[in-house]
Amino acid sequence: MNPAQKKRRGQLIVLSGPSGVGKSTVIAELLSLRDEIYFSVSYTTREPRVGEEDGVNYNFVDRAAFEAMIQGGELLEYAEYVNHYYGTSLRLIQEKLDRGIDVLLDIEVQGASKVRKKCPDAILIFIVPPSFEELSRRLRGRQTDSEEVIAGRLAKAREEYRHIRQYDYIVVNDKVSEAAGEILAILTAESCKTEHRIHMIEGDNAL
Amino acid sequence: MNPAQKKRRGQLIVLSGPSGVGKSTVIAELLSLRDEIYFSVSYTTREPRVGEEDGVNYNFVDRAAFEAMIQGGELLEYAEYVNHYYGTSLRLIQEKLDRGIDVLLDIEVQGASKVRKKCPDAILIFIVPPSFEELSRRLRGRQTDSEEVIAGRLAKAREEYRHIRQYDYIVVNDKVSEAAGEILAILTAESCKTEHRIHMIEGDNAL
Repeated sequence: MNPAQKKRRGQLIVLSGPSGVGKSTVIAELLSLRDEIYFSVSYTTREPRVGEEDGVNYNFVDRAAFEAMIQGGELLEYAEYVNHYYGTSLRLIQEKLDRGIDVLLDIEVQGASKVRKKCPDAILIFIVPPSFEELSRRLRGRQTDSEEVIAGRLAKAREEYRHIRQYDYIVVNDKVSEAAGEILAILTAESCKTEHRIHMIEGDNAL
Repeated sequence: MNPAQKKRRGQLIVLSGPSGVGKSTVIAELLSLRDEIYFSVSYTTREPRVGEEDGVNYNFVDRAAFEAMIQGGELLEYAEYVNHYYGTSLRLIQEKLDRGIDVLLDIEVQGASKVRKKCPDAILIFIVPPSFEELSRRLRGRQTDSEEVIAGRLAKAREEYRHIRQYDYIVVNDKVSEAAGEILAILTAESCKTEHRIHMIEGDNAL
């Protein structure tokens, strides 16, 4: 076997960003550009929004079911956010990573911090709008939330921004295609890191 | 001014790799894809090879002139390699970096190590062939060197490989366009690093 082709472990990629930044659109673009990434669908106890599908955007479960998963140790991370649980199933992710498949998680800052502790190699990316003013405009443009809910989301976003230094990268979602392109560049660069490729050198028998 | 447009300092990029790996071809491809990179032409005391131009591939100078530059403190780094001096002029590089222009250096492992010490933020990339056997084939295919010189280059390459862990990234030059693409991805990813973009967040008055 050519050492260059030796199967590496998959990369665990964490995407966070304030509500309204357009994360789902960026993720959809990313997955359309590179379909070998596995997008881990989170579990949540919140109600589906208009257009959201069970098993696609989230696995929608009730509080009792979610708390059973916590008790059973089935979650890589979970957090409570605006009075609802959000969490990530451990088993499926491990299986994909072991098979060399990159796994993408869409989780908020508390969850990201827990993933960082459990998986120090995870790549943490925070998506921001071009400006905070623009975020406020996008949230209002969505027309799904009351002013009160929007104010809550903006306050939450300010709080999230305070944890931004735990992230490895910041990607600006001005144009969706550019944001997705930057994330792809990050994944390529990470796979080029010496620690991930040194085995090619060390496994080269002609050396 | 939009904080996203705040002028950042240029990135200092160091490319190394064994003789025969095709570094010059990769660099030419890279510069054709992104022309805002400034390629720092090294000074050397070795003779030009067929097709090499003074001021393009290297600034060719004699030993006395090179040693005067050493004495005058005009070099960011210099090293002796197969009985010839190779060095990098400091002044021009600083000026470009200060103006926000990325600077590319093509230097060997001793020089890279010196740059790392003086500029800890430099991005160090080592270019390898798909295999060591392939390197040997490429050196022979070049038909400019005697078997003795080739053996010396291969021995030198083995020595260089021992310093590969000081590099941040390893890029495989199998296809030139892919190698150049990986380097561009690395530059994009590096510019997305939190430390380079945090000023956008901290400078956002609406936050």
